[in-house]
Amino acid sequence: MKIKVGVLGATGAVGQRFSQLLADHPYFDLVVLAASERSAGKSYQQATNWILPEPIPAHLGQMTVQEMSTGLDCELLFSALPTDSARKWESRYAAAGYGVFSNAGAHRMDSDVPLLIPEVNPEHLDLLTHQQVGRGWERGFIVTNPNCTSIPMTMALAPLQPRFGVETVVVTSLQALSGAGYPGVPSLDAIDNVIPFVADSEEIKMNDEPNKMLGASDGRQVTTAGITISAHCNRVPVSDGHLVTVSVRFKQKPSLGDILEAWTMWNPLPQKLNLPFAPTPPLVVRSEDNRPQPRLDRDAGRGMATTIGRLRPCTALDARFVALAHNTIRGAAGGSVLNAELMYAQGMLETFKEKEATHHVST
Amino acid sequence: MKIKVGVLGATGAVGQRFSQLLADHPYFDLVVLAASERSAGKSYQQATNWILPEPIPAHLGQMTVQEMSTGLDCELLFSALPTDSARKWESRYAAAGYGVFSNAGAHRMDSDVPLLIPEVNPEHLDLLTHQQVGRGWERGFIVTNPNCTSIPMTMALAPLQPRFGVETVVVTSLQALSGAGYPGVPSLDAIDNVIPFVADSEEIKMNDEPNKMLGASDGRQVTTAGITISAHCNRVPVSDGHLVTVSVRFKQKPSLGDILEAWTMWNPLPQKLNLPFAPTPPLVVRSEDNRPQPRLDRDAGRGMATTIGRLRPCTALDARFVALAHNTIRGAAGGSVLNAELMYAQGMLETFKEKEATHHVST
Amino acid sequence: MKIKVGVLGATGAVGQRFSQLLADHPYFDLVVLAASERSAGKSYQQATNWILPEPIPAHLGQMTVQEMSTGLDCELLFSALPTDSARKWESRYAAAGYGVFSNAGAHRMDSDVPLLIPEVNPEHLDLLTHQQVGRGWERGFIVTNPNCTSIPMTMALAPLQPRFGVETVVVTSLQALSGAGYPGVPSLDAIDNVIPFVADSEEIKMNDEPNKMLGASDGRQVTTAGITISAHCNRVPVSDGHLVTVSVRFKQKPSLGDILEAWTMWNPLPQKLNLPFAPTPPLVVRSEDNRPQPRLDRDAGRGMATTIGRLRPCTALDARFVALAHNTIRGAAGGSVLNAELMYAQGMLETFKEKEATHHVST
Amino acid sequence: MKIKVGVLGATGAVGQRFSQLLADHPYFDLVVLAASERSAGKSYQQATNWILPEPIPAHLGQMTVQEMSTGLDCELLFSALPTDSARKWESRYAAAGYGVFSNAGAHRMDSDVPLLIPEVNPEHLDLLTHQQVGRGWERGFIVTNPNCTSIPMTMALAPLQPRFGVETVVVTSLQALSGAGYPGVPSLDAIDNVIPFVADSEEIKMNDEPNKMLGASDGRQVTTAGITISAHCNRVPVSDGHLVTVSVRFKQKPSLGDILEAWTMWNPLPQKLNLPFAPTPPLVVRSEDNRPQPRLDRDAGRGMATTIGRLRPCTALDARFVALAHNTIRGAAGGSVLNAELMYAQGMLETFKEKEATHHVST
Repeated sequence: MKIKVGVLGATGAVGQRFSQLLADHPYFDLVVLAASERSAGKSYQQATNWILPEPIPAHLGQMTVQEMSTGLDCELLFSALPTDSARKWESRYAAAGYGVFSNAGAHRMDSDVPLLIPEVNPEHLDLLTHQQVGRGWERGFIVTNPNCTSIPMTMALAPLQPRFGVETVVVTSLQALSGAGYPGVPSLDAIDNVIPFVADSEEIKMNDEPNKMLGASDGRQVTTAGITISAHCNRVPVSDGHLVTVSVRFKQKPSLGDILEAWTMWNPLPQKLNLPFAPTPPLVVRSEDNRPQPRLDRDAGRGMATTIGRLRPCTALDARFVALAHNTIRGAAGGSVLNAELMYAQGMLETFKEKEATHHVST
Repeated sequence: MKIKVGVLGATGAVGQRFSQLLADHPYFDLVVLAASERSAGKSYQQATNWILPEPIPAHLGQMTVQEMSTGLDCELLFSALPTDSARKWESRYAAAGYGVFSNAGAHRMDSDVPLLIPEVNPEHLDLLTHQQVGRGWERGFIVTNPNCTSIPMTMALAPLQPRFGVETVVVTSLQALSGAGYPGVPSLDAIDNVIPFVADSEEIKMNDEPNKMLGASDGRQVTTAGITISAHCNRVPVSDGHLVTVSVRFKQKPSLGDILEAWTMWNPLPQKLNLPFAPTPPLVVRSEDNRPQPRLDRDAGRGMATTIGRLRPCTALDARFVALAHNTIRGAAGGSVLNAELMYAQGMLETFKEKEATHHVST
Repeated sequence: MKIKVGVLGATGAVGQRFSQLLADHPYFDLVVLAASERSAGKSYQQATNWILPEPIPAHLGQMTVQEMSTGLDCELLFSALPTDSARKWESRYAAAGYGVFSNAGAHRMDSDVPLLIPEVNPEHLDLLTHQQVGRGWERGFIVTNPNCTSIPMTMALAPLQPRFGVETVVVTSLQALSGAGYPGVPSLDAIDNVIPFVADSEEIKMNDEPNKMLGASDGRQVTTAGITISAHCNRVPVSDGHLVTVSVRFKQKPSLGDILEAWTMWNPLPQKLNLPFAPTPPLVVRSEDNRPQPRLDRDAGRGMATTIGRLRPCTALDARFVALAHNTIRGAAGGSVLNAELMYAQGMLETFKEKEATHHVST
Repeated sequence: MKIKVGVLGATGAVGQRFSQLLADHPYFDLVVLAASERSAGKSYQQATNWILPEPIPAHLGQMTVQEMSTGLDCELLFSALPTDSARKWESRYAAAGYGVFSNAGAHRMDSDVPLLIPEVNPEHLDLLTHQQVGRGWERGFIVTNPNCTSIPMTMALAPLQPRFGVETVVVTSLQALSGAGYPGVPSLDAIDNVIPFVADSEEIKMNDEPNKMLGASDGRQVTTAGITISAHCNRVPVSDGHLVTVSVRFKQKPSLGDILEAWTMWNPLPQKLNLPFAPTPPLVVRSEDNRPQPRLDRDAGRGMATTIGRLRPCTALDARFVALAHNTIRGAAGGSVLNAELMYAQGMLETFKEKEATHHVST
């Protein structure tokens, strides 16, 4: 039995990805597309400047965009809201009984909110009980996914951290244009150019978010992993796919073979549960000198895999490598859908399957 | 009185830059354009697929391309030869009495060959006497300039090294397409893409060359600076301008203000000598968040300046910044011309001003 | 029962597309990958610098590349050979009993060779009997598909020509980089640039090929359609998708509504036969001002549809519009596969289903 | 003696070009930079997001941006205002006694306003007396330059029209991103893409403006040249440089040699007057197959020349060729400066050289 879901901020760049990925999903039935007043009342087709190469799903194009309100007729909400709007609306929705899966940055670092990559820290979902009790939410909750640039690095470090202890990371990102949304980066800044800056907060997130995800939860809060991460964030003229060059120092000193083994043997929970959006394998390790490349590797695992290459010693720290993930699929909408699949498969969404939902309180 | 000079490999990408930059030079008179047999005998215009935005200088377009031989009627040679050809020809020319300023990698790491950036290590020219004696060259010599990617990093470190002691560097390059020559990188690899690999030797050069340039010469050889440099080299879809993100650990721990002061107060020899190609200032330090950018900063100082920005603390090492230089001007042809200007201004080329040159032995 | 097929020139850009499209086909079983001596004997994975965003099909990657010979163990061959090689090999293969579907230009304008777009001129297959008799081929044949740039224009004109009589066309192409193969266009020519030239023959093909395809066959030869077509061909920095701006003068003067109706009501043979690669609809007519665009429309109909937009009056001729098709799918490999599907569905390949093939004569 | 001039809309993309080109001009002294309230009171450096590769002229960076008012302390104004603002302000400034050289579209088609390319129709300045009398302006006036896309085509047709009579033109433009201003085209629309649409009015301007410029003035109005021009306008991922493919039908039927001769022998007034911004030659005719190209030819004549190539017969009309001009230099700011130079050199600006200007009426 499918659960009825909606997308918040459905007309924007990430909202379009949510719609495309949820258009025909085995667990979820996309029945609500919500956006700002400006779009409300129009058909999704009319309201949206569709920018994805994949065409707009026909049945969604016909749907009427709804205004933001807590009277939306669905159980779960995928949030592609901008940060300010997310701060205002997401807790309001959770209080009204909706399960909220958010791509926004608003609540990621809240101590009682799981910042989740299902392969990395599925156990952090144990924060939800504390979240609901502490906030007085009966059924609703907020689960977030990390910043798109944190994804490929965190996926690569996840199988290494428990075995070898990651101590220090120096990372440089080469981030795609779609990470800035639409209209986003002006073309005159992107053509024949690189911009060595993304946003004030980007390099801070690159330290804080992986440390939360790789840390340990006691059910009330997460103890940071204590890794020193220094990030240089850059924008490059690539449509999709964030690439990072990574230098790592470990507490135990693994050989390159140890690292390779940890990556290739990794079989985390989403893959064991065979979740619909879980890529197999989660890490694609390539042996060619010149991979990963955004154009050739971003769509690996239907945009959900992380591709790693160029593992070699680092004379300054211990080891160096390059990692890549699709920033609007794995790094945004697809990551959030996988979060919801994980909860579904673990029976944590049973209450949302009930027909008579309890939250329909208009505002 | 101008010295007669020639360009070796004049039809290639770097050879074209040499021709453009030397077309109207106050010290040097470009009278010889030499290239492979295939081009010899044609006019330079005909022989060359000119790829620079600046038009081919009219008087050079008319000149006849000459075959490689030690009978070229000039005194100094600027070499844009590929490595293999450079290995064969450059010492042969030096033995025949020519002064050779080479952009090739063939002799850069030879212990008796100066690897020169005039702002950084002008004193390394003291190797030349030893070079001539050791190799039995009466008048000829070889002076090299470094790999284009080493330039912006080395320029940025040069004023810091003597004051604060550079210990460790982690650097990621975002290198322009023109660094691969012509035809170089296929467009299908460059569009909407990044390639996390340049060449096997590139990351090695990024360690070895700065260490030689920042080291001390005793007139016979150079003691390496002993800096640990770990480089990640990447190709990005930019026509000209290599950008590097740099994390540095220092022995003494300078404040950010100390670093800024060292950069802005730096007044090295070429600027004191007011050399024609010496940019003033040599380092352009920008305060904006999003600079340097290749499209906006590569032409600073007519392509000879290094632009630095985003100085901030590094949690993993000590300080972080971004640096940029034009790879075919400062990083190749222009750098080599500045090397020649330095020797000229210091009176080290007097013997080449004599009319009756001694080397014209045909082969 | 599937027919065993092979790809000639399998390691090149178009050869890779053939392999990807035929990897899992309902009519054809891809069992032979043939290429030059240099590749022969290697696994396809090793022999190929795979440049498509879609990964190399795993089972094909394991196959051993074979040398060109008339002893290949299959019945049909899809030729991605360069023109010179095609001229040498294709008739040799046809003589040896293979059915050859060629993307090469070598035989397109031969009077007894169908130049085929299944939606446009399926009846031109009646040339094959004459071809076989005239050339003394018992079973083998050659069928060609047109130049990639001719496709979108010819698809757009096909439903208009019989109703309104196309008299004159002025067309400007904006052609993708992949049309030049790999390595093809150097990136320094493609970045921040347009090249107003493709090849000497390109603008000639743009006149000759549509006139052959839109002409009438009497079973022995084709009478040209007699349309005056003047083409300006340009290369633009786009990976895939050829776009053409078209101005047309008609003999009868249709209204814009007449033209729209002809396009939208068109239901040609491949769509009636429901061929696997036939896009439905064959022409996607868009009403937005700013479509078609390569990035958004090239994959319409899985790369087999032609997208048309901006229909409006032309003050100089009669009507103007823009058309786009994917140049390596519809314009090359996919077009050739559709040609084979058409023959298969019409029962013209029955003799190739027999197990005991008659052609295995080694050379 | 220099005339004091100002730039209206100085902080925008075209305004920056005006500032850069006028920073050190032999006839004009740039003393006023005016922009919207938001910028007024700031230094030009602070108020401007400078997007040109050439650095901001140091002395201009220090100047204070002024608010729009008719009390600006200068004699001539170069207008880079958007259309709406131009419609409001330009006639107000002319009424207050300023000479206005406008790049805006607001007054181009006014019957008493010269739409001027100095090489093409310098005699249209005879409209100014009628303009001043009719509008009751004592000293002020408005002179406009055409749309950037009209320039290369009109420059190419100008020497052909009087000799051979241009009857019909079919033109397709490949327009640069900078033509849309800043932020202009979103990078996600520009990467790996072409947009077959510029603006509703663009294709209309491409007909109307050349017909006005190539028409005859009787001192009161201009009789249109009566050429039928059908334009397809496209945006391509190029930073600067508009390229057009042109098919032309002539009344008299010139040979290709006749056309070439007309182009190469053309020596119009600005070149005869040796105006500072007049390129010599005005038309650069290239014989290579693959020229003009934006990256290689846009800077010809310091961005003021028009480059023409690929002259060949047109089977549909009479002749075909390709033309290119820099859209923000020749096609905008530089064109307007040349207009002012033409009037200066012809003694039409003498009244503005007087010290005691008469217009300083504050508003």
